Amino acid sequence: GETIRATLFPGDGIGPEIAESVKQVFNVAGVPIEWEEHYVGTEVDPRTESFLTWESLESVRRNKVGLKGPMATPIGKGHRSLNLTLRKELGLYANVRPCNSLPGYKTRYDDVNLVTIRENTEGEYSGLEHQVVRGVVESLKIITRQASLRVAEYAFHYAKANGRERVSAIHKANIMRKTDGLFLKCCREVAEKYPEIQYEEVIIDNCCMTLVKNPGLFDVLVMPNLYGDIISDLCAGLIGGFGPDTPVATSVKVAFCLAEAVHGSAPDIAGMNLANPTALMLSAVMMLRHLQFNDQADRIHNAILKTIAEGKFRTADLGGKASTSEFTNAVCDHI
Amino acid sequence: GETIRATLFPGDGIGPEIAESVKQVFNVAGVPIEWEEHYVGTEVDPRTESFLTWESLESVRRNKVGLKGPMATPIGKGHRSLNLTLRKELGLYANVRPCNSLPGYKTRYDDVNLVTIRENTEGEYSGLEHQVVRGVVESLKIITRQASLRVAEYAFHYAKANGRERVSAIHKANIMRKTDGLFLKCCREVAEKYPEIQYEEVIIDNCCMTLVKNPGLFDVLVMPNLYGDIISDLCAGLIGGFGPDTPVATSVKVAFCLAEAVHGSAPDIAGMNLANPTALMLSAVMMLRHLQFNDQADRIHNAILKTIAEGKFRTADLGGKASTSEFTNAVCDHI
Ligand SMILES: CC(C)[C@H](C(=O)O)[C@@H](O)C(=O)O
Ligand SMILES: CC(C)[C@H](C(=O)O)[C@@H](O)C(=O)O
Repeated sequence: GETIRATLFPGDGIGPEIAESVKQVFNVAGVPIEWEEHYVGTEVDPRTESFLTWESLESVRRNKVGLKGPMATPIGKGHRSLNLTLRKELGLYANVRPCNSLPGYKTRYDDVNLVTIRENTEGEYSGLEHQVVRGVVESLKIITRQASLRVAEYAFHYAKANGRERVSAIHKANIMRKTDGLFLKCCREVAEKYPEIQYEEVIIDNCCMTLVKNPGLFDVLVMPNLYGDIISDLCAGLIGGFGPDTPVATSVKVAFCLAEAVHGSAPDIAGMNLANPTALMLSAVMMLRHLQFNDQADRIHNAILKTIAEGKFRTADLGGKASTSEFTNAVCDHI
Repeated sequence: GETIRATLFPGDGIGPEIAESVKQVFNVAGVPIEWEEHYVGTEVDPRTESFLTWESLESVRRNKVGLKGPMATPIGKGHRSLNLTLRKELGLYANVRPCNSLPGYKTRYDDVNLVTIRENTEGEYSGLEHQVVRGVVESLKIITRQASLRVAEYAFHYAKANGRERVSAIHKANIMRKTDGLFLKCCREVAEKYPEIQYEEVIIDNCCMTLVKNPGLFDVLVMPNLYGDIISDLCAGLIGGFGPDTPVATSVKVAFCLAEAVHGSAPDIAGMNLANPTALMLSAVMMLRHLQFNDQADRIHNAILKTIAEGKFRTADLGGKASTSEFTNAVCDHI
């Protein structure tokens, strides 16, 4: 087989350590990937208007696939958010997060098995805001037919390809009749092309109430940007959260595929061999599936689940005593 | 003591039945209230542009206090949402929902003891939307200094008056820097005047994750309109929901005080003596506290909690077999 080149952003804080874990696991599983590693710069690159270097963006553009650790955007003016820059520059329009209860790791929920698909380019994230008069400000939420159709198409295609039964469009069209109304209209159009997939529409407030009462009622959820931001984190919380404290959720961007751990960079425990690499490993698994390395993806995924279920080598955030490398070694042993 | 006049909107669906329960309970507790009952009209009143009659709005304006059952806005054009019309016409700017685990009624959470305070007049509910070009629509989110200050002031005042320790402002100012930024700025200004109350700021996605993992970390939450809509329903879900299925949360509006059950009108079980009147009763308790009838409020509140905790007369939504009137009689017996 040939070797694939992929971009790796280890990120900052605990990023380099957990990226090391992924590299180790990939080696043991025999994944034929050669990494192009790029760190976030220490000053603003005028060509990207951010701390991301031009070369690092070019690397992802060329390779079309990447893995990204946590990146904290430095505070200050004159530069753009790292995460938003990546999404925008690479056109990462769908943010996909499978969310499953981890066997053997107890939370208040053991019945979570859903996928959130978030439109990731527009909506409340337009960046368009201004002061109308003193003391009165407005933000613009933009919804387009083009972006709505493509994320809806992605959701239904995903549902079909992954044996899912239902797509729920989440909205607040009873209030935002035009913007969320257009989003729903696009979802309905796409739904017509997938008669084998059930389709429903759920108002966001009701959706959140149902999620905390009975998440098992949901399958695939598709929604505009801000609702996706809120609901995907809510869902991550149901299975234990994904913070540096309990990183057990995963995220992957498509078109270009840039898998990323969604937790923070936890500077307080950086370099201490304490971080839990699960979220980045699960992201790496999604990257492998994107590349159709399904065999390696399955072996690594099962090894992660087994290690957590056994419980002997859990990291501190999951109530255990293992270090990052002990956990990683245990995963490698299970591969 | 003198008699207070208050407006009662029984609402539709199960509304009239559960309103009957409240009247019965108030009688037994000796609450000196005389109701002015108003039903939603069967056609649009041109003076209100909605199915609410002018007379009914005048009644609340005059009495300054009311109790409202569920109202389903008829579908169609040329009229306004009933709920939004009431909020707007009466200037109901803060939506307050205490949210407490019900002793003896088991959900996944037994540690909920928080209050959500939602700005209820602006934000994403501005009603300002338009098509920019074909396939591109926008909605305006409006945040004003005036409305933000007054809801922040309400939240801190509420915290102090109710022996609460902390106010958390919920926002997405990392994205909506101007609108949510102004909201936060106003909260900070008010926080300075209440040094005895702790103040923190929490990003909404993180807030939702924390709420489902550990709601006990929150005390009083204050936020713009849409976040409040989402989070107050999420919180209601934590304690069992408030739908017609499990109506155990409560809501009250201030300035004018219009207490209302936040669940739907459940037309499928209307008139069958099956509805759970708890949410409307708890709303009525809040109305009594607003009127400083604290003694009657306490007695009714305790009687409701006792009836649910005992479990003998629970309605079907809480897993019991009691009818609306059996539950109501049990509450009356406990007063
Ligand atoms: C960091 C922030 C800009 C980002 C977002 O709001 O999209 C984050 O919450 C996420 O979900 O990736
Ligand atoms: C019915 C709807 C307009 C309303 C809202 O979004 O405010 C409801 O969800 C609520 O919370 O009272």
